[in-house]
Amino acid sequence: MEIIVLRYGHRDVRDYRVTTHCALVSRALGANKIIICGEKDESVTKTVDDVTARWGGPFKVEWCDAWKPEVKRLKKKGFVIVHLTMYGLSVEEVTAKGSKLSKSKKVCAIIGSQKVERAVYEAADYNVGVAQQPHSEIAALAVFLDRIQQGKGLSKKFKGADRRIIPQERGKKVIGLKKSKAKKKK
Amino acid sequence: MEIIVLRYGHRDVRDYRVTTHCALVSRALGANKIIICGEKDESVTKTVDDVTARWGGPFKVEWCDAWKPEVKRLKKKGFVIVHLTMYGLSVEEVTAKGSKLSKSKKVCAIIGSQKVERAVYEAADYNVGVAQQPHSEIAALAVFLDRIQQGKGLSKKFKGADRRIIPQERGKKVIGLKKSKAKKKK
Repeated sequence: MEIIVLRYGHRDVRDYRVTTHCALVSRALGANKIIICGEKDESVTKTVDDVTARWGGPFKVEWCDAWKPEVKRLKKKGFVIVHLTMYGLSVEEVTAKGSKLSKSKKVCAIIGSQKVERAVYEAADYNVGVAQQPHSEIAALAVFLDRIQQGKGLSKKFKGADRRIIPQERGKKVIGLKKSKAKKKK
Repeated sequence: MEIIVLRYGHRDVRDYRVTTHCALVSRALGANKIIICGEKDESVTKTVDDVTARWGGPFKVEWCDAWKPEVKRLKKKGFVIVHLTMYGLSVEEVTAKGSKLSKSKKVCAIIGSQKVERAVYEAADYNVGVAQQPHSEIAALAVFLDRIQQGKGLSKKFKGADRRIIPQERGKKVIGLKKSKAKKKK
């Protein structure tokens, strides 16, 4: 499954940290790209690109001024548009194994930052709620990505990484890749 | 399952938004309480309490100066301590249906803000990683809460709410609940 995340309404400075979390979650949990709509902030791109350079990809950060042409373009390419909103249908149902959405080859997940205009609800093929309670677009995105990939998004293989974590009961173990010396931390 | 989230190392102003997300995710996805360690900020408490008053509970925000006595106290009360860190064992295994952790009655999930000291890794009964990649403590918490409750955290019933969302394919539908009922259950 090819997944693109579209971040709606990013505001410079104010949203730096939350948008960066959104981008890192997109990358870590199996998306190939995040398109951020709003006031361009190269520091978000730099932070995420640095992570991708060290921990692997592929993952891209792109920016756009307006969401509508992006969604139109993605629809033309065959992407199913999923808008994550607490008012939507429950993620459990919509992403259940065997559901139409779970069988999609290409999915674009839209997450809001500032209040999302009504046209987004209309443009989406699915409006999907994670818990139908107010919480966090970062959390909604994470649960959606985990579920839509039937849990496989958590064990994605990354390419071009120069390091990898070896899971530990206690402490930290990171091995170096490519480089001759393995870097071990405890 | 009774779940408490412990937020490590909250910094005033800087962490306001991310800690608020952590608290709202805790509430929405089935935890009963968040204990925030660090510089006290009543505006976090107020934001979350306002959500709980409108959307239901029970959910509490508490503050503490030091995590160690809290963890000690929780352990004495029978809580299993889970530290969410990208260096830990994979969440898929640790929370799998039938696993020892999934059968626990009381779980405390620790999430970091600033860098977590080594003693936390030592104090935890489990160090658990969500995707073994750098991303977001909000996302890690969300996936952990979803998985440890075998998906049931997303459909928690809240008491004392004055409103509830009716999931929609498009648009928003929120119904008001009787205030008398809300007060009674508060």
